[in-house]
Amino acid sequence: MKNEEKNIGRRKFIKVSTLLTAGLVSTPLMSFSQPSSTQSAESIYLIGPQKGYSPQIGTLLSTMTMMREWVIATVKDLSIEQLDFQIDDQSNSIGAMLLHLAATEKYYQLNTFEEMEWGTWSEEIKKEWDVPSGLGEEGRKQIIGNDIDYYLSKLKEVREVTKKEFAKRDDEWIMKSEPFFNNEPTNNYCKWFHVCEHESNHRGQMKFIIQRFQA
Amino acid sequence: MKNEEKNIGRRKFIKVSTLLTAGLVSTPLMSFSQPSSTQSAESIYLIGPQKGYSPQIGTLLSTMTMMREWVIATVKDLSIEQLDFQIDDQSNSIGAMLLHLAATEKYYQLNTFEEMEWGTWSEEIKKEWDVPSGLGEEGRKQIIGNDIDYYLSKLKEVREVTKKEFAKRDDEWIMKSEPFFNNEPTNNYCKWFHVCEHESNHRGQMKFIIQRFQA
Repeated sequence: MKNEEKNIGRRKFIKVSTLLTAGLVSTPLMSFSQPSSTQSAESIYLIGPQKGYSPQIGTLLSTMTMMREWVIATVKDLSIEQLDFQIDDQSNSIGAMLLHLAATEKYYQLNTFEEMEWGTWSEEIKKEWDVPSGLGEEGRKQIIGNDIDYYLSKLKEVREVTKKEFAKRDDEWIMKSEPFFNNEPTNNYCKWFHVCEHESNHRGQMKFIIQRFQA
Repeated sequence: MKNEEKNIGRRKFIKVSTLLTAGLVSTPLMSFSQPSSTQSAESIYLIGPQKGYSPQIGTLLSTMTMMREWVIATVKDLSIEQLDFQIDDQSNSIGAMLLHLAATEKYYQLNTFEEMEWGTWSEEIKKEWDVPSGLGEEGRKQIIGNDIDYYLSKLKEVREVTKKEFAKRDDEWIMKSEPFFNNEPTNNYCKWFHVCEHESNHRGQMKFIIQRFQA
């Protein structure tokens, strides 16, 4: 484990004794046959079913929440100049990548919640999200000069919709599939796992960039 | 969805009609209360319970399998020179990062399967894995000159152990927790989710590097 990860996050350390008293450590099993049994929300590092969500959706959401916290911890103290920084002419700034994460989540919302075919969004949606979704030259021109609160509030705004829509759905929905990645059957769980790992993919690039301007 | 991802993988397209005949599309619900009910292994994009594993372990493993396939698709055609390429003096090569993924998985095996405290590995283990785990200067010196088969076989060798150990365990084990990340209660699901998203983190960096030597 890297120190960076051991120290990540800003949440207070929760005493194990407290959890023992609450019966959360001694009975860690979350049986999927008992949907009312939900994982403690005390730590983002307890992946599993969450109150208010079906078992698999809750488990998926808990991975997305942990991942998002790590992204936030990586970028939260960056200045506008750092958010706009480019390693070279073809690189995306950290700011652009953050908006790209929000755009990706937005498009998967439309695809999985509204069952729209990929790319068939309205002109209004495209106008707002196609540039951060596509990044590249236009992204470099247009996504610039924003502070960290701008990006984090966009991410939060989109995530709130995801959570609201997740809460309306069940484990049958998350297993629904259609030909998607590589034209193979792809279920909603897979699409949302991708939204999650995609944040890690770009966090890897953000860390690479941060190491360069801190050098 | 990026074209890169839509086209990723080398598996044959499986006709939806075949899946319909097999009852896999029309009945996508995998009930966690029926452990015998397992997800089809036909597509890596059907995240969910897997035959031979407890429901949650199978679901987690399916995300790890998909992630690994994407890593492999990203690097499988790289030459030794490309695997050794460094963007700058402080950057890790793609080869070193691949061995780093194997080292990370190895250490989480020891921590979660053998319940060893982080870093208390034997000298023999440390000798083999501390350099790829730590990367940096020593990694740059020592992890060099290997072809892609070397890295992929190391990754596969370690993954086979993970799968064998996963098969022996149940959903009670995956919910077991101890203070770990940020000293907060962290369950085994979380540790293994991290092993998975960590591959995505480095895949993001690998793609960044590949774009540079293809430019």
